[in-house]
Amino acid sequence: MSEPGLGRLSLNQATTQHWGMAATIDGCARAGIGWLGVWRDKLAELGAAETARRLRSSGIRASSLCRGGFFPAASAAERQARLDENWRAVDEAAEVGAPVLVLVSGPPLDRDIDLARKQVEEGICALLPYAEERGIRLALEPLHPMFAGDRSVVVTLGQANAIAARIGSPFLGVAVDVYHVWWDPAVYDEIARAGSGIVGFHVSDWLAPPPDHLLGRGVMGDGHIEIRRLREAVDAAGYSGPIEVEIFNQTVWDMPGAEALALVRERYLRWC
Amino acid sequence: MSEPGLGRLSLNQATTQHWGMAATIDGCARAGIGWLGVWRDKLAELGAAETARRLRSSGIRASSLCRGGFFPAASAAERQARLDENWRAVDEAAEVGAPVLVLVSGPPLDRDIDLARKQVEEGICALLPYAEERGIRLALEPLHPMFAGDRSVVVTLGQANAIAARIGSPFLGVAVDVYHVWWDPAVYDEIARAGSGIVGFHVSDWLAPPPDHLLGRGVMGDGHIEIRRLREAVDAAGYSGPIEVEIFNQTVWDMPGAEALALVRERYLRWC
Repeated sequence: MSEPGLGRLSLNQATTQHWGMAATIDGCARAGIGWLGVWRDKLAELGAAETARRLRSSGIRASSLCRGGFFPAASAAERQARLDENWRAVDEAAEVGAPVLVLVSGPPLDRDIDLARKQVEEGICALLPYAEERGIRLALEPLHPMFAGDRSVVVTLGQANAIAARIGSPFLGVAVDVYHVWWDPAVYDEIARAGSGIVGFHVSDWLAPPPDHLLGRGVMGDGHIEIRRLREAVDAAGYSGPIEVEIFNQTVWDMPGAEALALVRERYLRWC
Repeated sequence: MSEPGLGRLSLNQATTQHWGMAATIDGCARAGIGWLGVWRDKLAELGAAETARRLRSSGIRASSLCRGGFFPAASAAERQARLDENWRAVDEAAEVGAPVLVLVSGPPLDRDIDLARKQVEEGICALLPYAEERGIRLALEPLHPMFAGDRSVVVTLGQANAIAARIGSPFLGVAVDVYHVWWDPAVYDEIARAGSGIVGFHVSDWLAPPPDHLLGRGVMGDGHIEIRRLREAVDAAGYSGPIEVEIFNQTVWDMPGAEALALVRERYLRWC
């Protein structure tokens, strides 16, 4: 088994929630990390233009912008408001130089999961022309089914692949996050099927049982996921882009940013 | 949409964790509940023979025994010990008159989920001849993928159906629990595919986000699951047996048994 090399390591800012944008860019530069998975709330700290300038002068590239999506809503007006927000996210991705905007679908409408799924697909279709115009690829990210009620009605890679196939645009791909897909008996088949449609790859680990619904992800090596096997499958499918470390975990959040980054780097080299 | 009728309501004892077996049987009899989903730890309170006698004299039938399974283990000796435990569970099911033993697969071995899945299938094959001899049907229950790390490497109805099809015994079926399968884009197809292989149906609701990993299930009507739609699908597939209400929820556990049962009955009639 081959290591992916440090050159593909990207720090997703969800891992270092309490590290400000300026300090994060400096910290990554000092640690020799060449990629940053940017969150919109962090981007707002300095603004997209100033963030882009600092990234450039530090030799760091944005691997993706997190996140757009959350399409389903009860009224047409609210759905339009969600779309407007997604257009702004596409703008920000373009401004900060992120080639990819990650999409989290959004939850069901009361008990109607089918309707929410239909609205997700409609939302993507409505967003795509603008993403294409600005040169941004959309990465539909299936979330773990434990988030089906509150965050994402798209819950398997198979489902994301099917949506991408139906829509059929080179500007719509999928993001594969090992935390969300590791349990799926079909995951290796679906990674192969996704092929060049994979536009993002995220790593963390699955603690059993998860200590928290949102903040219960583990650092690579601390849990049950066959991370290297999944990474090699994604590579074999044709992906050679950045590998984002995205760990929602209170203990990691409580660490000083540079310390968290050192841990991420060590575990990335050992387990990814 | 038609109601299933009170005659199919079964109280699974996981709903009333602190209600003793004797009081539960009396309480069900008083409330006109004709089925009980029995747990092995509860069965041990009076023993299988005395429990069976009290159930008979109260006109209550055991809908299933919970539970066998947990097959994967690192050593052959430990796997044999798990099998021995499953044989005892089959005996108890026969003694208490439960036609079905529910199987929860068990967790992965460290990071090797494929090996655990193989051992689950081998365990079922090793258990089946004895189940057949005693006239007990095994109900393989896929658990929600949030339990993939600590309880069950069988996480979709499609996976359970595939295992049942490969083994191909009339004494191996599947249990469909709405809490575990509601999120699955393939759930209606897989219910239809399961057909007469459905030997158990369990209901509760999905709260978003779940307030607890194990004890976070909702009472029917309090969450996001299209319970009636799923029940009608299961019926359309050929199932006409008892509907077990299985709600792992601390608030329900803290209610007096008779009060919990009254709530279960009311919500069953309204939502199932």
